[in-house]
Amino acid sequence: MKNDKNDKLLRLPSYGVWSAALTPLKADLSIDHEKLVTHGRFLLNEGCHGIGLFGTTGEANSFSVDERMNALEFVLQNGLSTESLMVGTGCCALSDTVILTQHAIDHGITKILLLPPFYYKNVGDEGLFYAFIEVVNRLNYKKLELYLYHFPAMSQIPLSINLIAKLCSALPDIIAGVKDSSGNLDHSLKLASNFPNLSIFPGNETHLLETLDNGCAGVISATANANAKGIRQIFDSWLNGNAETPTLQEHALSVREAFGRHALVPALKEFAHWSSKNQSWLRMRPPLVPLTPEEIKTLHSDLSSLSLTSE
Amino acid sequence: MKNDKNDKLLRLPSYGVWSAALTPLKADLSIDHEKLVTHGRFLLNEGCHGIGLFGTTGEANSFSVDERMNALEFVLQNGLSTESLMVGTGCCALSDTVILTQHAIDHGITKILLLPPFYYKNVGDEGLFYAFIEVVNRLNYKKLELYLYHFPAMSQIPLSINLIAKLCSALPDIIAGVKDSSGNLDHSLKLASNFPNLSIFPGNETHLLETLDNGCAGVISATANANAKGIRQIFDSWLNGNAETPTLQEHALSVREAFGRHALVPALKEFAHWSSKNQSWLRMRPPLVPLTPEEIKTLHSDLSSLSLTSE
Repeated sequence: MKNDKNDKLLRLPSYGVWSAALTPLKADLSIDHEKLVTHGRFLLNEGCHGIGLFGTTGEANSFSVDERMNALEFVLQNGLSTESLMVGTGCCALSDTVILTQHAIDHGITKILLLPPFYYKNVGDEGLFYAFIEVVNRLNYKKLELYLYHFPAMSQIPLSINLIAKLCSALPDIIAGVKDSSGNLDHSLKLASNFPNLSIFPGNETHLLETLDNGCAGVISATANANAKGIRQIFDSWLNGNAETPTLQEHALSVREAFGRHALVPALKEFAHWSSKNQSWLRMRPPLVPLTPEEIKTLHSDLSSLSLTSE
Repeated sequence: MKNDKNDKLLRLPSYGVWSAALTPLKADLSIDHEKLVTHGRFLLNEGCHGIGLFGTTGEANSFSVDERMNALEFVLQNGLSTESLMVGTGCCALSDTVILTQHAIDHGITKILLLPPFYYKNVGDEGLFYAFIEVVNRLNYKKLELYLYHFPAMSQIPLSINLIAKLCSALPDIIAGVKDSSGNLDHSLKLASNFPNLSIFPGNETHLLETLDNGCAGVISATANANAKGIRQIFDSWLNGNAETPTLQEHALSVREAFGRHALVPALKEFAHWSSKNQSWLRMRPPLVPLTPEEIKTLHSDLSSLSLTSE
């Protein structure tokens, strides 16, 4: 895989197909640590370059700081490497974000996905800048790669290009990338063009091919919980300049659309249930709820027609 | 104060002018416990029937669970009574909400202000119902009054009339009221008319007179940090049927509007700084930031013209 594309990727802080991992739960809605390790290994075996732990898909904000720290310790003690993980640590409370981030750092994690504080709305760039800087100022670290989490539809806190530029100037050795969950191709391309030294990860694989062609680093994908192989194939095929890449991209887009017709986390947990025959995957923390029987029927039918089945 | 109005209020779980207290901070942005007690006493002395601790104005979600529990313990140990407090405990994580709520209950608090989990957007009534029920199911209590916190502009999670009705049916002895921070008079009146046995507290005093006339219980007010006396005067004047009530209401509305021209928490902290000559009131947790010099000038000028000054 020695080629120009590869050289460019290798100059970025990180790259590739990352899965925003689902979080499996026990009957009391606590995190099922063993199953989280198993699911993490499965995602890596399916071809993911790494795993985003405790993002939106992983119901991060539905767990307490202690629950998140305990789960991270368990997966690290049970075979997932620090290099394979990008850990989400952004909370509403400065103190929570600092504790979670320092804990991850202390356990060898270098890649941190940082959501801005998201309770107060319509806060300006000044307040968000202050929020990120205040976190970093309170951390002790040797190596730290911060990935800024832009997810305006969910957090309602967009991270502007100006804010990212200001943060890059203030923290040049730390700001490593952006997870762009805007769902907007133009925005991803604009980020890649404005910040050629950052790893820009769109939040889904809808336009993986085009974003890779234009300097993005890959994808951090929720759908990779169900279609990691298919998404990795696009990436490898693009890297090698294979002719079938657009066809692979088209298929992954259809898979993504099949899930996107429903609430995404419940739909992905339904798939995990379906493919594993394990009811426990249907558990989720409130306010998320499982799909309705009608939605399940639609999802199964859509996925079957895309040859993504329970086999 | 023995009259029909009073009798009606006394039949509600609670009523009156409650202040959504600001949270004073130390230089390291930790909660200044001593000053919080002093501020609480001040608010009660100014005429508040009670204090809403850790709501939006109190930057609740900017503090960790431990910080909130420690502060509550301190104010209870230092002279604020359990009866004078309504404590906000709603977090994104079920586990955090349960710990905070149980802690408050264990310390004698009966009035709990409950924000729904607010990270995931566009969740339906079913998920929100599940969220509230799951919290209550995990609590041990003898007496519990839950006040549901409807603040669509901030939490982005509206609580529909149908959802409230379902919760009242499922938890008839527990659901005690609604804090309606919709800022919409019609919505407050609709709540009061639909739920005559609940304490409906609009989130500001803009229409205190009209909402009291139509069955609401009073107000839980941010502005009461600066204008508790003025707001209490409206309440007492209304109760006694005094002729000057509309004039008092008009003045309180103007005060509210003067603060409402700015980000509310920073504006109220600026007033606390101005009136106390104490710089420490200017501290706030990110993402909130102090008013600009220009905004401060406008605020001081507006308030001075309303005879609400630093004296």
